[in-house]
Amino acid sequence: MLSRNLCLYRSTVKYCSISSCCMKTSVHTHRQRTFANISYEFPQHENITYNRSSFVKKSLHGTKQLVDDVPEDINCNTFTYRTHTCGELRPEHGGKMVTLCGWVQFSRLSKFLLLRDAYGLTQCIVNNDNINLSDIPLETVVKIEGTVALRPKDMINQTMATGEVEVIIDKLDILNSVHMLPFNLRNYQKPKEQLRLQHRYVDLRFPEMQHNLRVRSHMLHNMRRFLIESHGFVEVETPTLFCRTPGGAREFVVPTHHEGLFYSLVQSPQQFKQMLMSGGVDRYFQVARCYRDETTRPDRQPEFTQLDIELSFTNLDGVLTMIEELLYSTFVKSLPKPPFKRITYREALTNYGTDKPNLTYDLKFINLKKLFPEKSNDENFGAYALPYTKEIGKLTTKYKEKIREFAKKHSCKVVLSENITKELGTDVGRHIQSLVKDSDATIIALGEDENACLCLGEIRELIALLLKSNNMLQVKSDVEPLWVVDFPLFLKGENGLETCHHPFTSPHPADLHLLDSEPLKVRSLAYDVVMNGNEIGGGSVRVHNAELQEKILNILNIDPSTLSHFINALKCGCPPHAGIALGIDRLVTLACNAESIREVIAFPKSHDGRDPLSGAPNSISDEDKKYYHITTVK
Amino acid sequence: MLSRNLCLYRSTVKYCSISSCCMKTSVHTHRQRTFANISYEFPQHENITYNRSSFVKKSLHGTKQLVDDVPEDINCNTFTYRTHTCGELRPEHGGKMVTLCGWVQFSRLSKFLLLRDAYGLTQCIVNNDNINLSDIPLETVVKIEGTVALRPKDMINQTMATGEVEVIIDKLDILNSVHMLPFNLRNYQKPKEQLRLQHRYVDLRFPEMQHNLRVRSHMLHNMRRFLIESHGFVEVETPTLFCRTPGGAREFVVPTHHEGLFYSLVQSPQQFKQMLMSGGVDRYFQVARCYRDETTRPDRQPEFTQLDIELSFTNLDGVLTMIEELLYSTFVKSLPKPPFKRITYREALTNYGTDKPNLTYDLKFINLKKLFPEKSNDENFGAYALPYTKEIGKLTTKYKEKIREFAKKHSCKVVLSENITKELGTDVGRHIQSLVKDSDATIIALGEDENACLCLGEIRELIALLLKSNNMLQVKSDVEPLWVVDFPLFLKGENGLETCHHPFTSPHPADLHLLDSEPLKVRSLAYDVVMNGNEIGGGSVRVHNAELQEKILNILNIDPSTLSHFINALKCGCPPHAGIALGIDRLVTLACNAESIREVIAFPKSHDGRDPLSGAPNSISDEDKKYYHITTVK
Repeated sequence: MLSRNLCLYRSTVKYCSISSCCMKTSVHTHRQRTFANISYEFPQHENITYNRSSFVKKSLHGTKQLVDDVPEDINCNTFTYRTHTCGELRPEHGGKMVTLCGWVQFSRLSKFLLLRDAYGLTQCIVNNDNINLSDIPLETVVKIEGTVALRPKDMINQTMATGEVEVIIDKLDILNSVHMLPFNLRNYQKPKEQLRLQHRYVDLRFPEMQHNLRVRSHMLHNMRRFLIESHGFVEVETPTLFCRTPGGAREFVVPTHHEGLFYSLVQSPQQFKQMLMSGGVDRYFQVARCYRDETTRPDRQPEFTQLDIELSFTNLDGVLTMIEELLYSTFVKSLPKPPFKRITYREALTNYGTDKPNLTYDLKFINLKKLFPEKSNDENFGAYALPYTKEIGKLTTKYKEKIREFAKKHSCKVVLSENITKELGTDVGRHIQSLVKDSDATIIALGEDENACLCLGEIRELIALLLKSNNMLQVKSDVEPLWVVDFPLFLKGENGLETCHHPFTSPHPADLHLLDSEPLKVRSLAYDVVMNGNEIGGGSVRVHNAELQEKILNILNIDPSTLSHFINALKCGCPPHAGIALGIDRLVTLACNAESIREVIAFPKSHDGRDPLSGAPNSISDEDKKYYHITTVK
Repeated sequence: MLSRNLCLYRSTVKYCSISSCCMKTSVHTHRQRTFANISYEFPQHENITYNRSSFVKKSLHGTKQLVDDVPEDINCNTFTYRTHTCGELRPEHGGKMVTLCGWVQFSRLSKFLLLRDAYGLTQCIVNNDNINLSDIPLETVVKIEGTVALRPKDMINQTMATGEVEVIIDKLDILNSVHMLPFNLRNYQKPKEQLRLQHRYVDLRFPEMQHNLRVRSHMLHNMRRFLIESHGFVEVETPTLFCRTPGGAREFVVPTHHEGLFYSLVQSPQQFKQMLMSGGVDRYFQVARCYRDETTRPDRQPEFTQLDIELSFTNLDGVLTMIEELLYSTFVKSLPKPPFKRITYREALTNYGTDKPNLTYDLKFINLKKLFPEKSNDENFGAYALPYTKEIGKLTTKYKEKIREFAKKHSCKVVLSENITKELGTDVGRHIQSLVKDSDATIIALGEDENACLCLGEIRELIALLLKSNNMLQVKSDVEPLWVVDFPLFLKGENGLETCHHPFTSPHPADLHLLDSEPLKVRSLAYDVVMNGNEIGGGSVRVHNAELQEKILNILNIDPSTLSHFINALKCGCPPHAGIALGIDRLVTLACNAESIREVIAFPKSHDGRDPLSGAPNSISDEDKKYYHITTVK
């Protein structure tokens, strides 16, 4: 009986949620303690959740239902030669002949075999001298035919979905053997990311990856159902091989066999969706693949997915309401009931020092400008204080160094709590102290208004991290979505004005009169949706008037003739329209509590746009170069 | 009252189905005849169907429901400032204040305005001297607020979904004016395709384009529901920037800022989906964008969409059954109840002379080999007869010329009916006559077996066209799907053996012993699904054994080291798996009775891969070339 108990013991290791990768503590049961002397021989590989954490199903009216297992009406066994998945058997299957297929997760004493597939684990038992489990390496793919037996009551494993049964093996076929295994599928010895990406075909077997890909599929499907079935949207596929969009991000180019002529890979379907509006496709969406050559920036993928939406005869409120309903009814984690908080760009900047503030914690600026009466007429001057708890004590040199860097980067002056009186005088110091709680320290930033904000914004995030790691900051566990609106239409660029969003964004109607005289003061009808400090989407009401569009292009120093097809689409009777794009990679990352977008992408590139799996990008043949009329140069 | 009657008359022009573009006959009513003298002043632009032909909704069990209008639970007005679409108002809305938005389809006598949106047409009437319709050009975008009134009984237009009501205009706002219109939206003066593509943003307003894009969205959504909700598939997005796949179609290359290194745009997610199988994602699908540089071939798009499916622990029958159920429950036209017909590649070739036979008509070959006893031992010799009705008479020179071309192309001998005795002798002639009906003529092809088949296959299609145009061929109106199986694994290529499908296709287990000795005789586990002469999908059981895969690559003269990542995925415990890809563009073309795939793609390229809308491909800047380390050469 020893072996039997051991086997059960293995299964008593606690199943935990998605974040299980960092949870290595097993739950010690009586039985474990009994066999404590050998317990460390057993890998804690059951420290996983297949399909148990899984799917949150929400009705479109916002009520939620947590589905622990695959919903009953989904049949995952159709068109295969298995009868059940490895996560499916329950006591009511007792006595049934079943066929399971999967990977050997573990075997012991030539008697017990733990079989795994994407849906769970099932314990199988050899009852037949002809089958020798010891010859079968881990991760071998097998087919097992056998009979479901109920486990004795005291051997039921409550932490395992199939823990009440086991399968007595009648026949075992090896479907494919294992010639190599780059790493073991053990959470407690999880390999480094580079190795995981290089052998993604094995890495995908980890339960978190299974979970993340399923959540992604599930969320996108629910978004489609919301848009198509409830609101009559039409999914339209638009080309990715297109011409360059002036004034945007760097676009990959694709040589053609026409000498000297190239496609550009679209950075978004922006022009196409606006042309669809002109074409009367008034409720468009697309789960769109987009390309940006930002491979030199960390944590960016050269290709990414956005949920791209556009509709006609609407306005800013229409789009914001739509996205609130969409997210509320399809995001797998709980969200506050719409409407979501809305703040202006100016508020975001002057309160949090960023256009994507993280509102899961409370740190907020105090405007100190009135303490500097000599600067009251200087529009460009700003002074802000960030109060935070004194409890954390004096900042260490490391933090002071970081803050000095921020100050330098944003060319503004930063004064730490302990230096306020010395640097700003007793009056100002006393005044500041009257504005904050006695228990608060403050850091102050002064200088060009926006720079002071941005600098203090970076300091805010640094201080938040410090407080969090010392358990001195209350952080909401829920996702906190908010809208940022009233962005400026233009920004000052190196060569004149640049667009803040893209050249097709509508100016705020109240500011139209400033377009010629004070363009930098013109607000736009753009909006960003932000979750916990991440910009997860953005959009705008678009310009639908051809003359206004040409005027804005001219202000931006973009030759309208490079966009003549687009201007013509506006000239031919284009309805007013607005839209948005949600970054699916980031949204799913948040939904899965994943650490990086690479955890929710099946085959991501690593930094610098390289594919550790295939080695792409590669050199190409001379014949290909000749066909495309190109040569490589330094 | 004259004007009122006229207005109604306009609406009595018959609405017809999708093929309306070629239907110009109006249905003459009593009223029309009364005003016959002016009837030709009216454009027949109502000869259209918005949303009436529309959607076929099928339950997953195969029962069908024709939905004439947008299903009731879909609300197409949410998040907009219209209250109703232009296809929505019915008598029960009488007296209601409504807001409609749309395009001016037609206006007359400063009193009547026909408003159009994607959902239909509504007649609006001016009741207010302040509104002057004569100033408003066609295709102007307007917002109308007004009251729904019932039309007098004798003025009801039964052929128009909203024909029982009209809207009395209280307020009319011009939302956007029209500065140019490249062509009128009149089916009877439909512009040439090049002009349509150049101004696609206007062309999309034609009801057929609206219909086609909606059918496409609808079909894809139903396919997703079938796969996800009924069968537990997971949609996984795989990269399009990858490395070159050896032995496939020509792939576009994408230069990177790493000197001399290029991505290739994937021709399909084949490698990725097989690696997903190894990764335990055992039920994968993706509506995948694929790229092939076949821009020099007519009717090919450089990018296209396929429904890509792969599953583990299955076999050929599993995949065929799945696709039959998928198509049966999601294709918008009626299909025969599964299972679909299955024929072998050899049967297809020797009966119809093609691997994608059109079975909507009956023309079928007769094998004549036994009439040539001197060739009975020559495996390579084939002789086939195509019988067809004598009624059509002697072929004209034009047809004979075509047939001569086919014979030359396939290096075989073709004998027309009238020359049989002369060329093949009296005995053979008499024998052939005994094999066909008295009423039949025959064309005979002799030569290398496969060539004779292919040649007669082209003749079969030519004769079918001829007979059809003379109404002498019975053609089924339904779609006739069939499977072609037992393809050869290899084909003879210019430089040794080539793959018939792709290098990952499994050999037929019964032919494994021939792999070394007679590779050309080895059948594969590949399958194609064919509809009405179009290959709409294909797939295979894959090789899951690394050694077998390496062997096949070696036979194909592909260096296995160029696919080491893929081979490793097989070595790490990859389950047996099989899959398929359906060509969505072709499938939707069939579903919509469209003439070309360009009719079901929102923004297609024209021949040679050019985009008539934007002018892409274009030249790029020297700065871009420098960044990507390339120069252009002759």
